[in-house]
Amino acid sequence: MDQSMRWAEGFIAVDWGTTNRRAYLLDAKGKCTDEFEDGKGILSVEQGGFPEAVAEIRTRLGDLPLLMAGMIGSNRGWIEAPYVHCPAGLDDLIGKLVWAEQGRTAIVPGVAYLSDDRADVMRGEEAQIVGAVGAELIPQDCLVCHPGTHNKWVHVDDGRIVTFRTVMTGELFSLLKKHSILSDLLSTEIEREEAFRAGIRHGLTSGSVTSDLFSVRASVLLGRSRRDDAMSFTSGLLIGADLRVGLAIAADAEIVVMGRPELTRLYVTGLDEAGRFGREVDGDTAFLNGIRAIAERIT
Amino acid sequence: MDQSMRWAEGFIAVDWGTTNRRAYLLDAKGKCTDEFEDGKGILSVEQGGFPEAVAEIRTRLGDLPLLMAGMIGSNRGWIEAPYVHCPAGLDDLIGKLVWAEQGRTAIVPGVAYLSDDRADVMRGEEAQIVGAVGAELIPQDCLVCHPGTHNKWVHVDDGRIVTFRTVMTGELFSLLKKHSILSDLLSTEIEREEAFRAGIRHGLTSGSVTSDLFSVRASVLLGRSRRDDAMSFTSGLLIGADLRVGLAIAADAEIVVMGRPELTRLYVTGLDEAGRFGREVDGDTAFLNGIRAIAERIT
Repeated sequence: MDQSMRWAEGFIAVDWGTTNRRAYLLDAKGKCTDEFEDGKGILSVEQGGFPEAVAEIRTRLGDLPLLMAGMIGSNRGWIEAPYVHCPAGLDDLIGKLVWAEQGRTAIVPGVAYLSDDRADVMRGEEAQIVGAVGAELIPQDCLVCHPGTHNKWVHVDDGRIVTFRTVMTGELFSLLKKHSILSDLLSTEIEREEAFRAGIRHGLTSGSVTSDLFSVRASVLLGRSRRDDAMSFTSGLLIGADLRVGLAIAADAEIVVMGRPELTRLYVTGLDEAGRFGREVDGDTAFLNGIRAIAERIT
Repeated sequence: MDQSMRWAEGFIAVDWGTTNRRAYLLDAKGKCTDEFEDGKGILSVEQGGFPEAVAEIRTRLGDLPLLMAGMIGSNRGWIEAPYVHCPAGLDDLIGKLVWAEQGRTAIVPGVAYLSDDRADVMRGEEAQIVGAVGAELIPQDCLVCHPGTHNKWVHVDDGRIVTFRTVMTGELFSLLKKHSILSDLLSTEIEREEAFRAGIRHGLTSGSVTSDLFSVRASVLLGRSRRDDAMSFTSGLLIGADLRVGLAIAADAEIVVMGRPELTRLYVTGLDEAGRFGREVDGDTAFLNGIRAIAERIT
């Protein structure tokens, strides 16, 4: 049977992360007709258990070609898909696809940035970003902000990722909420109001987050700030510091904020406070468009 | 019985923190003749349990006057000792001692800094710093770096704390070691060699620790750095960023680095990399000198 024919008949796309995975069934027209998400991230799959974990996806969604992105291609995943170095565009990713089962099951490689003074890596975001360019969902030239556990600022030039930078904002915020001296202050909802904006302004200019964080606690203790504002201010502070890093990468580029709406919303408000406009693009939509743009070129 | 007489005959000094406490018996000449440390920090003492926890100290070291500093005076401690605001010198602390038992058991208040744009607090370090000035262990004018879970940079002018700033370096490093994506890289010893110094240099200039931290991991993944250097580099990075904050407080002041020798050593090496000299003062010695300077003036 001609494998290239099979991709055109429909395929399964999987965004396989560290702690969960999301699988989508795409029909011949590229429409998503079924999907599921579960907690079977790569860390929960035993050594040697990936063929079975993949077979399980086919049992649920159909015996079709399968294209995967994310941590499944890391050294803790199924088969390591070596990083493609910047500049990396759609053709570069497709050229370095790793075939777990020839013609039938492929893994999209991650992207690496390496210079004399800095190193950075991504796995998963590249399929969304480069794919979204290929699908004309985002411009050929832009700065993509991709918030998550590890926020990525990605400079896309002529459709290729030329440089990017990771800021551990989500992970740091999570550590502070769960395990730090600020835990008891960080349990409310984040309101995109004045406290959040004040945090953004502070983070954009301060350059010393590790000191500012303690000041959040002291401000409440000394009655300078309201306890109820601490969560929003802290979120703003971390996002402001994050924006400071990102905006320095490509000062004048059009900005796309891609990811889960509850996060992109915060960054767009932050950008507004910095006097910049950020266009929101839903991460799932970008993934489906991106993975489809890759699959279309597999034949 | 004349209480003031009793202080001159010797007393017990207690450095009572969040997770442990350390008690010292000082004789009439101020010499430490006995001491103990245990895990009975304020968080392990039940509501209403402090009189008994204090009685236990007297049972072990003698029925003498008792002077305490640290979190015992916080809102989670025995009796809240309201913060003395900057500028705060020895007389200010003594004037605001809180007597848990009149003439017999006192708590040294913490110090607060409050301005339009920032708030900060300390509890425990003030006894060491202001006391050490009173005991002529450190100069009347200096910048004290006091590393720990929350590093304090304290500007002492004419013997009084005029401003200070907390950097959460120790807590952040601990969170990263225990709970973060860097955990597996942060399990070796810190060597004060080139990787540590490279981290210092980077931290002194970068201004974006949350981004640099992820680069540590990517550098190892991409073979740019040695896995064995990650711990030392990361420690250097955080300390360099910390120095950047501290050195901006009082650019030309003489620098004293006070605390546990395994920490002061790292900061002194960091200062050396920044072209500055830091004089090390042992924190225990400072505490004993400081608390004695306070006790001498109680009569």
